[in-house]
Amino acid sequence: MSGTKLKSVLSSFSQVPRELEPLPSDRHSLDDSCVRLNTNENPFPMPEVVMQSAIAALEQQYLYPEHDNISLREAAADAYGLTKDQVIAGNGSSELLGLIYRAFLAPGDSVAMLSPGFSFNRKLAMLQGAQFLEIECGQSDVLPVEELLSGPAEGAKFILLANPNNPSGTFVPVAEIERLAAQSDRLIVLDEAYVDFAPDNGLRLIHHYPNILLLRTFSKSYAAAGIRIGFGLGHPEIIGRLRNIQNVFNMNVIGHAVGVSILAHRDAYEENHRHIKRERERVSFALSQLGFCVTPSHANFLLARVPAGRNGRWWQQALERRKVLVAVFSEPCLNEHIRISIGTSAQMDILLSEIFKVVNDPEQ
Amino acid sequence: MSGTKLKSVLSSFSQVPRELEPLPSDRHSLDDSCVRLNTNENPFPMPEVVMQSAIAALEQQYLYPEHDNISLREAAADAYGLTKDQVIAGNGSSELLGLIYRAFLAPGDSVAMLSPGFSFNRKLAMLQGAQFLEIECGQSDVLPVEELLSGPAEGAKFILLANPNNPSGTFVPVAEIERLAAQSDRLIVLDEAYVDFAPDNGLRLIHHYPNILLLRTFSKSYAAAGIRIGFGLGHPEIIGRLRNIQNVFNMNVIGHAVGVSILAHRDAYEENHRHIKRERERVSFALSQLGFCVTPSHANFLLARVPAGRNGRWWQQALERRKVLVAVFSEPCLNEHIRISIGTSAQMDILLSEIFKVVNDPEQ
Repeated sequence: MSGTKLKSVLSSFSQVPRELEPLPSDRHSLDDSCVRLNTNENPFPMPEVVMQSAIAALEQQYLYPEHDNISLREAAADAYGLTKDQVIAGNGSSELLGLIYRAFLAPGDSVAMLSPGFSFNRKLAMLQGAQFLEIECGQSDVLPVEELLSGPAEGAKFILLANPNNPSGTFVPVAEIERLAAQSDRLIVLDEAYVDFAPDNGLRLIHHYPNILLLRTFSKSYAAAGIRIGFGLGHPEIIGRLRNIQNVFNMNVIGHAVGVSILAHRDAYEENHRHIKRERERVSFALSQLGFCVTPSHANFLLARVPAGRNGRWWQQALERRKVLVAVFSEPCLNEHIRISIGTSAQMDILLSEIFKVVNDPEQ
Repeated sequence: MSGTKLKSVLSSFSQVPRELEPLPSDRHSLDDSCVRLNTNENPFPMPEVVMQSAIAALEQQYLYPEHDNISLREAAADAYGLTKDQVIAGNGSSELLGLIYRAFLAPGDSVAMLSPGFSFNRKLAMLQGAQFLEIECGQSDVLPVEELLSGPAEGAKFILLANPNNPSGTFVPVAEIERLAAQSDRLIVLDEAYVDFAPDNGLRLIHHYPNILLLRTFSKSYAAAGIRIGFGLGHPEIIGRLRNIQNVFNMNVIGHAVGVSILAHRDAYEENHRHIKRERERVSFALSQLGFCVTPSHANFLLARVPAGRNGRWWQQALERRKVLVAVFSEPCLNEHIRISIGTSAQMDILLSEIFKVVNDPEQ
């Protein structure tokens, strides 16, 4: 009886696309002894002052979080030189990306992203029933402005740019993004997740271009991926549309407290950013000595083409057997690549030592 | 120039309904000295063991939260006698309600709720472009099964029941919900946010009725509103559809740790539940002595009709001036009512003392 009832319950709902069949429930769990260099985390301890604010917030666990994230939005507005109606706070920028797709895309619409890019966007477009256009730009640090203005992306409801880009680590001059914003009447979502490791940022564009929507996250440069703190910065009308469809109490009291505290103590993270940039150059050089071809990076990771003879997947598996996790990608153009997050010096020493062993004895 | 550009950017998106114009950015902030009895929080300190698990999780702040909330879903499945594919974990049950509307309602569809009920649902239906049907049931503790099966709600894609109901606090026998589930081929979303203060619960229905989707939250009976932990429990097919559209990393590492720890130490909350039930009866009796007519409650709040001559809003304002916050509702049938959350004995003594003063000198 139960099976028949289930069928009639489900049949009353509209069809879900094939790709959205229920997820498998099992995923292999992470081995804690592994060196995790596959998700661009930043293994930096929370400054004591931030930790204390989080512990104080735990004592308020029984109270609902502040409505509409007001204090956190005010703190971000102060830090970035904006007003709070130019700021939306998210449970990570992943929540904000989800809101952007829901707010600005109807079924049948299209969205354009430079490729290769952050693959999470493909799923978001699919959930919205929208077409996802990928504009090839390889690992270039030049923005294909004309292609974005008049190519297949011309009809896209919005354009997604990440600067620095992931997984390439490349950085395009802010002036090129400005040129695109000036010439286009479409919304440009500029994901600056990795911008604190880069030489410049696009914050100033917000004051001049209402079609720029900037995304920031504390997951990378502020070492808080586990807390989930992200911001959308832009014109109040655009930000208002996102806030309007955002769920109540989207962040918990710890997210609020840690976010406000990080904003007040950003200087405590400067040494961390310097460390990552130093290690990035050291590891990049060492990898090139070992036969890898490394794309110059402005992020906290390196995209490296592996030495001829094996592909990225082979290297990922060889390193995983040696308890070092790195990322690979499904795009054919990245078949020969691995992406390596920059962690502590000790982690990077282990990486280099294990790669050295694999290079010297690939069959082990 | 900026204004023209904004207009052309916005004009490319589909129209938003009037009710979804940008939110105002300002809300009056809460006065910390107030006794908050307006949002059904549970002012109970976190047990030390739960607090320690949260602090330990803070040390992992730089790691992304576990994918798909696996450990938390496993712990909930164990606690509730289910498998983990029958469990979805949410950033509060408010996130899960949002997913339910998005997964199961297309524009033009309708959803039915018993009225008066949780008003948040009205906004969710509107966001989805769906019709929101309210089936009057007043403060009855009888479920209008026939009306739900064949009345205006007959075409609804799903039916929302809350048991105990909010804001009435009434509880309908689980057997009546079972009768509805057995006779209906529609999905029944059974929100049990307040069930730990009630004499029974609907968990056993999940094993027999694939059209029952149960919601639980740790905001009320586990005093964790600020952490945001909720669960959806039901058939794997229904749960899978929700998991499929859920954002990645929807909960942070603190939500995971506190959720797992509460599930392992539920007995530490039993005295809190006994306290709330005792205070509920004490305050209910005292209010009736003061001229209020209190609906018998099975939740951590009381719905009280105020003494003749004034309405609910008047009482709310009179109490707010005395730094006691209670809730009122926009439904005309609740015009004469206030809702009072049950807090500590000290908080309830303040409430009763302030109400006594207002009764004796309403002009003060």
